[in-house]
Parts: sequence; C-alpha cells; structure tokens
Amino acid sequence: MQDKLTLMIPGPTPVPESVLKAMGRHPIGHRSGDFQAVVQRTTEQLKWLHQTDGDVLVITGSGTAAMEAGIINTLSRGDKVLCGDNGKFGERWVKVARAFGLDVEVISAEWGQPLNPEAFRDALTADTNKAIRAVILTHSETSTGVINDLETISGYVRAHGTAITIADCVTSLGATDVPMDAWGVDVVASGSQKGYMLPPGLSFVAMGERAWQAYERSDLPKFYLDLGPYRKTAAKNSNPFTPAVNLYLGLEVALEMMQQEGLEAIFARHSRHRAATQAGMKAMGLPLFAAEGFGSPAITAVAPEGVDAEQLRQEVKKRFDILLAGGQDHLKGKVFRIGHLGFVCDRDVITAIAAIETTLQSLGLHKGTMGSGVAAAADALG
Amino acid sequence: MQDKLTLMIPGPTPVPESVLKAMGRHPIGHRSGDFQAVVQRTTEQLKWLHQTDGDVLVITGSGTAAMEAGIINTLSRGDKVLCGDNGKFGERWVKVARAFGLDVEVISAEWGQPLNPEAFRDALTADTNKAIRAVILTHSETSTGVINDLETISGYVRAHGTAITIADCVTSLGATDVPMDAWGVDVVASGSQKGYMLPPGLSFVAMGERAWQAYERSDLPKFYLDLGPYRKTAAKNSNPFTPAVNLYLGLEVALEMMQQEGLEAIFARHSRHRAATQAGMKAMGLPLFAAEGFGSPAITAVAPEGVDAEQLRQEVKKRFDILLAGGQDHLKGKVFRIGHLGFVCDRDVITAIAAIETTLQSLGLHKGTMGSGVAAAADALG
Repeated sequence: MQDKLTLMIPGPTPVPESVLKAMGRHPIGHRSGDFQAVVQRTTEQLKWLHQTDGDVLVITGSGTAAMEAGIINTLSRGDKVLCGDNGKFGERWVKVARAFGLDVEVISAEWGQPLNPEAFRDALTADTNKAIRAVILTHSETSTGVINDLETISGYVRAHGTAITIADCVTSLGATDVPMDAWGVDVVASGSQKGYMLPPGLSFVAMGERAWQAYERSDLPKFYLDLGPYRKTAAKNSNPFTPAVNLYLGLEVALEMMQQEGLEAIFARHSRHRAATQAGMKAMGLPLFAAEGFGSPAITAVAPEGVDAEQLRQEVKKRFDILLAGGQDHLKGKVFRIGHLGFVCDRDVITAIAAIETTLQSLGLHKGTMGSGVAAAADALG
Repeated sequence: MQDKLTLMIPGPTPVPESVLKAMGRHPIGHRSGDFQAVVQRTTEQLKWLHQTDGDVLVITGSGTAAMEAGIINTLSRGDKVLCGDNGKFGERWVKVARAFGLDVEVISAEWGQPLNPEAFRDALTADTNKAIRAVILTHSETSTGVINDLETISGYVRAHGTAITIADCVTSLGATDVPMDAWGVDVVASGSQKGYMLPPGLSFVAMGERAWQAYERSDLPKFYLDLGPYRKTAAKNSNPFTPAVNLYLGLEVALEMMQQEGLEAIFARHSRHRAATQAGMKAMGLPLFAAEGFGSPAITAVAPEGVDAEQLRQEVKKRFDILLAGGQDHLKGKVFRIGHLGFVCDRDVITAIAAIETTLQSLGLHKGTMGSGVAAAADALG
C-alpha cells in the first residue's frame, strides 16, 4: 500500500496537516509587511520555547549550520575548548571545532553511556589560567538515545567564570525542559525537523548575553553564518538573506500549536512516551542501548540480542510502513531506534510497539508472551 | 481583497500549484530509498539545467550560502582575486571575499552600467606572475537589472590559464543561456526562489573540474559548506546533512516542468518578456535604468522621472495586489523593478504593465497616450 508512511525516526518527524497547509501556500515577499509580521510573531514564540530573554535567530540551513554558527560566532582560532563526545553528534562537534582550528580537549564516554559531569568539573577546576573558552556538548545524543546532564555541566562552566556553554539541543528542545537562561546555557542550537514538528530546512541559534560578549572577540571568518547581521535584522523583523519563506509560514503555525499545548504538557507527553517505549521493549526482552536512567525523551535505542536489528527494522517498514531508524556507524545492524519526538501521540507509540511485537512474533523471535510489549506500554501510558 | 497576491519581484518568484502540492506532502526519511531516488533524478536534472558534466550540489541555505561555498571551497587566505562590482550583489561578492581574508581587486562599473570585459582582460594580461586565483562576478545583477558579459569575461579568465571564474547566476540560470562547460565557467551559484520556480530554501553550487583542482589546495576553514562531503554523498544519492526534504520534493517537480518546456523555449520566453516589459515602459515614457542593450532577462529596473518610484510601487500593490520590487540602497525611491523570472507567462507581463499604466493614469502621471504601454508590450510579445 502506498502513501501510508509513518515516521518514527528522530527526524524528519511527523508534520501536522495544518503546518503542511501553511507551507503549501504561495510564497509571499520576504521584505513585505505580511512577512515581517510572521518574523515578529515567531521571534516571540521562539523565545518562549527557549525560555530565554536572549536572541533566537533563524537560519536557512540544516542543524549542523546552527552548530557551526554557535562555534564560529563565539570563538577564535587556537582557542581551547572542551568537547563532550559520547556518540555520533558529539563526534561531529569535535570535527566542527577542529575544522575551525580550535584546540580541542575531548571528554568522552562510551556510546550508550552519559557524559560524566565530574570530568568536566575536574577539567574546568584544573584550568586555573582560564584558558578554556567554551564547553561544547550534545544534550540529547540522537545516535545512542542518551540524554546528557546539561544542567549540571553548564553549572560547572558558570563556576569557571570565563568559558561559555554551547549545546546541541537538536533533539531535546521541545521534548524536554531546556530553560536556557535558568541553566546558564549560552548558545543553544536546534533544527526544525525535530520537536518543532516541521520539515527540515530551518535551524535555530539562541544566543545569551555572554555569547554576544564572546562574539565581540571572535575572529573566525564568517559571512553567511555571521550572527551579527541576523541579530540586527531580527530587530527589524527581517533576515539578512532570503529566508525559507514557506517553512517560516509553517513554523508560525507549529509554534502556535506548541503554545496551545503548553511547555509542561509537551514535556510530560514526551516523558510518558519514553516510559511507554522503554517498558514495551523491556517486556519483550529487548534490552535498551542507553544506560538505565539516561534514556532520551526523544528517542529510544534498542539493542536486541540474537536478533538482526536491521532485519527487524526492515520488516517493520515492509509490513507496517513504519519507518524506524537504524544504528549509525559501528552500531549498524546492532541497534534500531524508535523516534518519539515532536508530533507524536499515544496512538503512534502503541502502534509502533504493536508493530515491533507482531514482527518479532512472526519472525519467531519473541522472547516473552505475545502482547506483553503492548500491555507494558499501555500500563506506562496510564 | 485577500489571497490574490501576484509576485513580480526577482525572488521569491511565483510557484506552480503542482510544486506547492509536492512540497506540502508529508516528509519522508532523508536516508530512505524513496528519497535517494529523488536525489538521483534531481542531480541529473540539475546537470541538464547547468549544461555541465561537472557536479551540481544542493545546499540547504540561501543563495548567499552558495556564493560563499563557491569562494571558501576554491581559495585560500591571502589569495588575490578580481571582483566585479556594478550593483548590490557585486558588492556582496566583495564583502564575502574580504570576510575570508582574500586580497580583493575590485573592477567596478556604475550601477546601471555593465562591467567592462576589457577591464578584466587588461588586469589578467598584466598579471604575468599568475597571482590572480579567481575572477568573481555577478551574471545578472538583480539590483539594477543589468546582465554582464559572463561569456567574454570567462574566456579571458581561461586565457589567463591559472585563475578560475566564480559566477553568481542566481537570476540568470533558468532565464537565459548559461552553458557552464561551453563558456568555461568553473563555479556557478544559484538559488531556488528564482528561475527554479520554487520557494527559497535551497541553493546550488556547480563545480567544474578546475574548481575541484582548486578545492584541493584551498585552506579556508569550512564544515557545513565544505563541498567535498556534498560531492561524496551525492555520488551515493544522498546528502551530508539533513536536507530540506519538502523543497527537494518540489524541486523534482519544478525541474520536470522545465525539462518539458525545454531550455530554448524557457530562454525565448524570458527574452520575449524582457522585450515586452522594456517596450511597455518606454511607450509610457518611463526610462529604463539599465544601459541600452544590457537589460537582464530576469528583471527590468525602471527609473521614472518626476514620479516617486516607491509611491507608484505601493499604489500598484494596494490597488492590484501585484508586488513589484523597490530600489535598493541609494536607488530607494528612484527605481522600481519588475521581475519577469521563472514561472511567468504572457498574461503576467501584460497584467503588470496594464496595472502600472492604470496607476500612472489615476495618479495623473501618464506621459503618453493611455493604453500605449500595453499596446507596445502586446506588440513585442507578438
């Protein structure tokens, strides 16, 4: 059967019909009063979502563009930085930082384990010369389904006094609490195809006051991703370059939906879906990949024993047209990942678990009682 | 009346319903086989549009991202370059080049005049040490409605032997002939909201073999816009970062429409619309801003005497809901610009001229016989 695809990957995530309709409108001029009104509203909505009084700037680009912008607007060639690395996106931070000539000290953890906040504290405390300019890390590590303790780590960075915190919140923003100002996170990068309930194409960089101070001394070359002109034009409800107008029209609708649901309800929904997914997997004898207690609210990675994860994933796609994500790099074939991020309701979660359970059963690989996965998930949903 | 806007600006340009429908579909996974098929088809279509055997890479970003990518992937800090500057987008090239530490020699012409190819020839001939690494220029200068002689200039660059040609073809590609390989242009940058008949959000960089040779020695720092990974993943029908999936779905449909119309027919259509617009304006006593014989096939800039260009533009918008573009920078209020780029038919052109003519008449500013503008345009359309 065609055209019945359900996305349960960590991005692109499902998009509401009302957002698709807004995006499918004829474009309007990006310098028109009508579009300025859209920029004005979305700017306010984005500050609400980030829980910040700082600036949230909209870039036409992938999430990586926002990550790069966070680095090249606050740092200078040769600057010392600490990078957290416990998965593919942590690795990417290290690559971006090195591409721009930063002096990178990596604080790593095994894939599936969270970053150890005390390792950051130790490195920051030992830095009596205040050479460290930034701590760069991923909040929700999409490749492993692990959530890192951004709050504690950014607290240690504040205690250091000089360094700033730059965080990839691509799959945490809009899924779990990221009170940027309250936690003292200076730069937050995110992308539209995640908690925002939009297709990919827009990315977002939030900059606090300390990040703008760092901007003043940053010497890395930049033009398209120079956030100075973004800030200046945002004050006039505009953009420095022609933005993705139709995605912006969708953004306004999606953020309105989020405001109607409310931040607490959104976070509670993601938390319930994480609990249900984890309970369902465990009940079927499918071990979780992330360390206990550190599962991401956006995505659950599953490491089945005695089952080819890729075969299971492909069977679920073939029979039920539900797209799960595979494992990345060395986890290919060993892990599959269930996205429960963004526009996801209880029905989607029990559907995915029922489909996985049915597929396991039909492959003769169900290790428990058929129905136990759905039962456990339903119980967790309450 | 609402929802009856017609865009006659140089971007965003009007978008066909079939393209909007494709864009309004639920997104699919960007690593799925279905999406790989889209990448494969659009890659072939893009080569056809660029008339090249080289690579045409798709970036999620504004046109300026493609311009920047052209520079940072082929040049190194301190490299000497010649930049053509005869308008706002020529100025932007100079700014981008300087932002990345290039040694820029500017060859300028007054706004409204074309760049003088002989000035490029002289500078290249005088460069016996072969210090000049690139010649950077705008093909169709959107701010003034002037088309520069890219063919002749890139011929001089080839004769130089070492330098490459980097061209902003944002409002020329898909409007007039840009046979990249035949002319020996090494890098061509363009954007989706122009001749492509798409909303903004995608940009394109075409790289010939000499451009890839230059890539090998380029030392400018880059990550998001590093074209190496774009080339590598394009060979596998994929992208290095999550692309704007929905715009890609629209791109496929738009390029199919272009292939059905055919390049010669597309260029002839733009040429006729330029002729009709120019004839209509002249017949109403409205002087063209671009020097005679150098009008862009994408946009006609008009410099009315004794008429506030901005007032005329706003009246046309208010009364007829046709959006014309204003003048940029020092041309504000002195010039208005009529976009006839992309998904524009004869009806759109005579409608715009009739609306301008009616507005002039109602303001008591028509200098000729009422109806003369439409008559001249109709005559030129044939």
